[in-house]
Amino acid sequence: MDEAAFIAALRTLPLHAGARGLHDDVAQLEVGGETLILTHDSMAAGTHFRANADMADVAWKLVASNLSDLAAKGAEPVGVLLSYTLGTDDARFLKGLDEALTKFAVPILGGDTIAADGPPTFGMTAIGRATYTPVPHRAGAVVGDAIYVTGPLGRAMLGFEGQPDYLAAFNRPHPRLAEGRALAPFTHTMMDISDGLLLDCWRMAQAHNDLTFQLDRATIPVADPNRLDECIRWGEDYELLFTCAPTASLPVPATRIGTVIEAQHGLLQLDDAVLDSSIGLGYQH
Amino acid sequence: MDEAAFIAALRTLPLHAGARGLHDDVAQLEVGGETLILTHDSMAAGTHFRANADMADVAWKLVASNLSDLAAKGAEPVGVLLSYTLGTDDARFLKGLDEALTKFAVPILGGDTIAADGPPTFGMTAIGRATYTPVPHRAGAVVGDAIYVTGPLGRAMLGFEGQPDYLAAFNRPHPRLAEGRALAPFTHTMMDISDGLLLDCWRMAQAHNDLTFQLDRATIPVADPNRLDECIRWGEDYELLFTCAPTASLPVPATRIGTVIEAQHGLLQLDDAVLDSSIGLGYQH
Repeated sequence: MDEAAFIAALRTLPLHAGARGLHDDVAQLEVGGETLILTHDSMAAGTHFRANADMADVAWKLVASNLSDLAAKGAEPVGVLLSYTLGTDDARFLKGLDEALTKFAVPILGGDTIAADGPPTFGMTAIGRATYTPVPHRAGAVVGDAIYVTGPLGRAMLGFEGQPDYLAAFNRPHPRLAEGRALAPFTHTMMDISDGLLLDCWRMAQAHNDLTFQLDRATIPVADPNRLDECIRWGEDYELLFTCAPTASLPVPATRIGTVIEAQHGLLQLDDAVLDSSIGLGYQH
Repeated sequence: MDEAAFIAALRTLPLHAGARGLHDDVAQLEVGGETLILTHDSMAAGTHFRANADMADVAWKLVASNLSDLAAKGAEPVGVLLSYTLGTDDARFLKGLDEALTKFAVPILGGDTIAADGPPTFGMTAIGRATYTPVPHRAGAVVGDAIYVTGPLGRAMLGFEGQPDYLAAFNRPHPRLAEGRALAPFTHTMMDISDGLLLDCWRMAQAHNDLTFQLDRATIPVADPNRLDECIRWGEDYELLFTCAPTASLPVPATRIGTVIEAQHGLLQLDDAVLDSSIGLGYQH
């Protein structure tokens, strides 16, 4: 079974209303007048990080990838639960974990530590508190919305390739927590870009009915303009992708990269090219 | 680094107050006047289940072990987040997951599905709502308390060995959710027995200062009296262990197995035998 089939099957099981049909990266839980945002990301050696990666970077990225999902909801982090498999330079993992938790001011709530055979898997559940309601979700765009991104794409790709100026972008990404909180009241839909701009924008479009997300290639900010097509297909930049009214006066810097239009021939257009399948748009795992 | 050393190191990192210093199985989160209980359990092939286990049973036990931690806090389940590694009879896993979620009336809130090499690891974060505050914790016993257990021990052991009457006890354990909610107002301290009565009682004693937990061997209910010493060292029965005033009139059946006394020569006594180390008391993983 692949991931899509498994998730489709999960949708037939008992779901909490706050799971939003498992069509979003997070769950929303109303508790005593507050709105909590819950998310879980897992990372496995070989799939999500290289076996020889510095475990301090792996720990940092585990925290960052989870907090990025909170950022896209305009939530402030409350705490995290860690699922840890012992045995792969635990001291370095703890160092990176400490640095990330300190940097992003999020404390540990709990978790589980286990022994296991084979390549390790790490998981983290992050809990945040919504600072603005309604919480931005994936399916709120309307015709005429401007499509924005908070920063250049492809930085993680260049870091992965070893370019010195971009090593930190790959190894120590920063979730856009402050930007997400500031933007939440202005957005119609928002998500973080973890698997590549095109793929994540395709997923955002897929959450809507009868809309096409039309991107203007020349306006997309990228780290290396000579490799634009790669930059917009590579993940792990953790920028925010959102739509809002074209007249909105945004509180943080962001670049307009397109417009939401009535449905044309596909979910996504890059200039005149219709991208009618998610294949080849980004990183699927 | 072993589990104890790793957790000791985690304690030096930023901790949420609700983590209780990572001395408990769960975290407690106050939100808008409500008290949420959060717990995460992970299971790895080879360590926590046999590689040839029916994945439906593995899924059921993943749910049950997490809900058992909620039961020990008198909490009612709100929802779970699943961390799933694809590839090991996914359809059977989904079947057991569905059965457990339906049986215990707990819905899916979210999670993450990944591909990974090697033996799979599964994780679950369970979220519950406290039905009684203060929430029972590990360190509330006082001298004179009676020590109780909600049911016989060793049933999972006999099931693991293949005894037909006990297969269900091993493969499909039932967390004591109703019992935990009923008992919470009466208990001074409560936890679930996942790793063996003696080891878990030793851990409970360890959470206190200057107390000895004295168990009366002849009173401990076990599935096979001829193998009492094994029954009280084998885990996965998911009964509740608690202390309360000796005069308490309990709302559910439970068996008194001992008394909390002023500290003597060790944390735990079994009749006159002082158990002064956790080695050999139960299942450590």
